[in-house]
Amino acid sequence: WQATVYSLVVFSATMVVMFWASVFLYTSFYFTYMPDESITWPMNFHYQSCQDRPGICSNPYAIISVTDPTRGSVLARGQKYRVVVDIEMPESPTNQRIGNEDDMFNVGMFLINMSMRTHSGQILRKSSRSTMLRYRSPLLHTLSTVTFSPLLLYGIQEEKQMVTVELFSQYEEDPVTPLSDVHVELESRFVELYGAQLRIHAIFSGLRYLMYHYPLVSAAMGIGICMVFLSAVVIFSWYQFSGPTLNARIG
Amino acid sequence: WQATVYSLVVFSATMVVMFWASVFLYTSFYFTYMPDESITWPMNFHYQSCQDRPGICSNPYAIISVTDPTRGSVLARGQKYRVVVDIEMPESPTNQRIGNEDDMFNVGMFLINMSMRTHSGQILRKSSRSTMLRYRSPLLHTLSTVTFSPLLLYGIQEEKQMVTVELFSQYEEDPVTPLSDVHVELESRFVELYGAQLRIHAIFSGLRYLMYHYPLVSAAMGIGICMVFLSAVVIFSWYQFSGPTLNARIG
Amino acid sequence: WQATVYSLVVFSATMVVMFWASVFLYTSFYFTYMPDESITWPMNFHYQSCQDRPGICSNPYAIISVTDPTRGSVLARGQKYRVVVDIEMPESPTNQRIGNEDDMFNVGMFLINMSMRTHSGQILRKSSRSTMLRYRSPLLHTLSTVTFSPLLLYGIQEEKQMVTVELFSQYEEDPVTPLSDVHVELESRFVELYGAQLRIHAIFSGLRYLMYHYPLVSAAMGIGICMVFLSAVVIFSWYQFSGPTLNARIG
Repeated sequence: WQATVYSLVVFSATMVVMFWASVFLYTSFYFTYMPDESITWPMNFHYQSCQDRPGICSNPYAIISVTDPTRGSVLARGQKYRVVVDIEMPESPTNQRIGNEDDMFNVGMFLINMSMRTHSGQILRKSSRSTMLRYRSPLLHTLSTVTFSPLLLYGIQEEKQMVTVELFSQYEEDPVTPLSDVHVELESRFVELYGAQLRIHAIFSGLRYLMYHYPLVSAAMGIGICMVFLSAVVIFSWYQFSGPTLNARIG
Repeated sequence: WQATVYSLVVFSATMVVMFWASVFLYTSFYFTYMPDESITWPMNFHYQSCQDRPGICSNPYAIISVTDPTRGSVLARGQKYRVVVDIEMPESPTNQRIGNEDDMFNVGMFLINMSMRTHSGQILRKSSRSTMLRYRSPLLHTLSTVTFSPLLLYGIQEEKQMVTVELFSQYEEDPVTPLSDVHVELESRFVELYGAQLRIHAIFSGLRYLMYHYPLVSAAMGIGICMVFLSAVVIFSWYQFSGPTLNARIG
Repeated sequence: WQATVYSLVVFSATMVVMFWASVFLYTSFYFTYMPDESITWPMNFHYQSCQDRPGICSNPYAIISVTDPTRGSVLARGQKYRVVVDIEMPESPTNQRIGNEDDMFNVGMFLINMSMRTHSGQILRKSSRSTMLRYRSPLLHTLSTVTFSPLLLYGIQEEKQMVTVELFSQYEEDPVTPLSDVHVELESRFVELYGAQLRIHAIFSGLRYLMYHYPLVSAAMGIGICMVFLSAVVIFSWYQFSGPTLNARIG
């Protein structure tokens, strides 16, 4: 009876230790294998101010350093990324091209140019995308202002739009030439913006997709697999040590 | 009695195997013979931005690579295709040419030019089509904005139109000169657009039409035909092996 | 008694055969003699876009190839045709010339020129017709928009007009110089249109008129006439073969 209790205690203690070891193993694997889903940097645009009149006299230009101080590159190798720019633009007459009676046929579209560069300035990939403020008619604008006036008056909402532009849908890094700087240019001197940010999203596929979208199931699976392996190791080692003794006792 | 059971088991097992073999044959035939019904690519228009004023100073131009990395060309040979461009245009004053009292007679039509080219840049076919935003009177616009205001305010609907232009109604590829790039030009510098996409639809005729529009019936027919052939093969081979034995037993 | 049954069977069998032969004869005559009542081609207008302002800087021009790959010309000889163009025009201010107080006396009429040409470009016949959008006053327009607003809001109806212009009321082809291309020009640079189509209608006269407008009566008549002729042939040939035998038996 005492032997039974003793073996039960040993068994459950082994199980607990194995369980926590599996959790630790899976967690460390998770954080090593999974890159960040999304990384965000603020973009600070620079330009030359006009001397004789208001406005800007060069295209807004921003350089974002996307290196990680500890690892070098923030991008995991063999992982596809989606590179996106969010621009926070006010719905001002300048941005909407409305109310400009002299020159009615101005088109509100503008280009965003992005170049991915290495530390030495070599251009890895370039992309150029056209975008524009979503149009809202004066009537809809009036309706929206009246409807959301409580929010607008207390500054919870603002008359601005978040313009999201996808620059690269599938960016994959070559480990030989790691990405260091992202250069962004707005190819227009007639765009008003409050701020902007650069977002890099990992597109997970295969195991990473499962681990990202079904974290509980994959954690259970991963911990289970770890425990099976650990159990095999424990049983084998136990047999190695206790086996001859048993045989000797029986024999 | 035992022989009857035995032959019944053999018969039903043969039928099940033949059925699954037929399903497999028909499925593999289906996916080999049927091209994709519709393929879509995003179109990214590029242009030169004006330096001294807002707007664009060259016609929007897009190059879409329609090759498939594994097969070379995405178009099946001997298959007719319908090539369509969808343009997402805001109902803005620039696109509608409304409210410009000085210059009333501007026409809102513009041309879309498309050229299909090989990898070496040789032009295979060209097409040019005129299109324009559908006109909606200010009264109808007001009615529509008021009626759909809940949807418009929450961004579910937008004041935009999807302009669909058919560039080729029957495009068939010559296997000697496979299609590689599609060049699209909007012949106007006064068009605002949010985005655009290229769609290529297969026009199914004959057997493909039946297989696409009546999939269940044609699957039943195809599997039936396969089973008839397989039964013939099985009966013939069974006769070949068992026949002489029977004759010998009877004889 | 047996002879009566025998001759009845022979008689009814002959009648059935003669009936189906008549149906076949009439049907083949119908499809040989009757041309298609109406053939339609889409018209794709081309023009030069203006460089410095929106709009078009040349008259819209379309070339429609009306040849049939198998028969050469689509027009039957000795048949008169009515040639019609349908233009789908939005009721836009540009098309209506409304609301332009400075320049009130602009007339909304424009000319459509059509030339019928042979394969070598020789002009067979020319025609020029004036047309314009049907005028609707602002009040009527408001009433109509409000009345039909449910249909207009859901896109079932649109603020457009179908302008139908008859270019030739009686076009007859000379078999020596078959029609190959139809050239159409809109003699105005201030016309907006969504699309257009060319329609060629056969004007049936005499027998064709009867066969087209009273198909059942003419089918009955035609089959009846065929049966009368066939009966005459059968009776005559039966008399030729059986006559001498009867005479010999009686004689």
